[in-house]
Amino acid sequence: MGTLFGVGVGPGDPELMTVKAQRVIASCPVIVYFAARRSRGNSFAVIDSLIEEHHQLLRLTYPVTTEAVEPTTYEQRMADFYDESAATIADHLESDRDVAVVCEGDPFFYGSYMYIHQRLAGRFPTEVVPGITSVSAASAAAGRPLVSKNETLTILSGVLPPDQLKEAMSGVDAAVVMKVGRNLSAVRDAAQACGLAEGAVYVERASCQEQRVMPLLETGDVDAPYFSLVLIPGTHITGK
Amino acid sequence: MGTLFGVGVGPGDPELMTVKAQRVIASCPVIVYFAARRSRGNSFAVIDSLIEEHHQLLRLTYPVTTEAVEPTTYEQRMADFYDESAATIADHLESDRDVAVVCEGDPFFYGSYMYIHQRLAGRFPTEVVPGITSVSAASAAAGRPLVSKNETLTILSGVLPPDQLKEAMSGVDAAVVMKVGRNLSAVRDAAQACGLAEGAVYVERASCQEQRVMPLLETGDVDAPYFSLVLIPGTHITGK
Repeated sequence: MGTLFGVGVGPGDPELMTVKAQRVIASCPVIVYFAARRSRGNSFAVIDSLIEEHHQLLRLTYPVTTEAVEPTTYEQRMADFYDESAATIADHLESDRDVAVVCEGDPFFYGSYMYIHQRLAGRFPTEVVPGITSVSAASAAAGRPLVSKNETLTILSGVLPPDQLKEAMSGVDAAVVMKVGRNLSAVRDAAQACGLAEGAVYVERASCQEQRVMPLLETGDVDAPYFSLVLIPGTHITGK
Repeated sequence: MGTLFGVGVGPGDPELMTVKAQRVIASCPVIVYFAARRSRGNSFAVIDSLIEEHHQLLRLTYPVTTEAVEPTTYEQRMADFYDESAATIADHLESDRDVAVVCEGDPFFYGSYMYIHQRLAGRFPTEVVPGITSVSAASAAAGRPLVSKNETLTILSGVLPPDQLKEAMSGVDAAVVMKVGRNLSAVRDAAQACGLAEGAVYVERASCQEQRVMPLLETGDVDAPYFSLVLIPGTHITGK
């Protein structure tokens, strides 16, 4: 039986891959990556230069790209997609071929790999290679320490409804809002309502060539991509 | 003027260093690491094999190893220590020598580098190389997806007083308690009080040879080191 590897390839800069991720990719005959329709796939862009002749590439194209469709429909279509993807991967594993599923960031931190893992971990040996998250890359890019001492860090999704955003952000020590995209103005409003907007930083495509970093309060005209986030650094560090 | 690099070397396994961390360490003439008294230093253990003849090593030994001393005294002694450490590093930077301060995990995620950064970033060029956190390494080691979809992840310190621990953990979607150590029983109590103990996982020294993973509810006899944590994975993934 082959082994299933979930490989975090980090936030975008190929140099932010780990040595282990590179070794596992080099050694696996089958490399699987996710991509949106009409996109090359962010994780594929990171590993492109590591692909050699012996590799068999398997692209998994998401059937829907946003959650804009009716929620029940979205859930069902994604579940079917992951079922089919897992079945294809299982065929390789049953034929003794190791499979590396590559993911941006870290596989178990909002990563699509987890849906494959959930379906196959009971049947095949698995190993997860952790990756640098966009959270770490963004705070490095901004040059802002994120959390120190006994502060609590709250990491939340910008896709939450505005009232839940505000509730989740109220009273935090430090926070990161992921998946900002089209919700940027709602995230900015919530940060302002919670008195957190002043020191907050908007980071787009951290570590990539197209990286942008700016104060949250100056993002009024920004058309944020899905891969953007807002950092609300802790303040205890500045007190020392 | 030299450049100050804050280099995350990851959770312990040298293979979980990034390619960039290795390159920066190789290129810097001065390598700085923190260590507790009578300890080799966890970050030094990770980079030991990368040290070459051209490197000048600078060990910074913490003057106090726990926060067991009276809080005001502790804060003052640590502030003095970081002031002196920053001054030593500044001498190298002023002499045009690049300096890499290596940290376990990620420099801006509860890392000691931030206290050096805070003191020197206004005077010298700086660059932070993000690292794999113990959070990512622990969820990989446990084989448990940590957070998915629109779940919120709460990361907190086990050093918090018991009532604050309970308050911070109540109603979370997913959580990680860092710096468990001698507070393990208080963390277990808080998780039980919040109805979160059942699926929680204790992870000690994730990715190191001495790594241990076990259900939180089976840790009654465990003498937890400082570098241990408790994962409370989100549950939305299991619903699919």
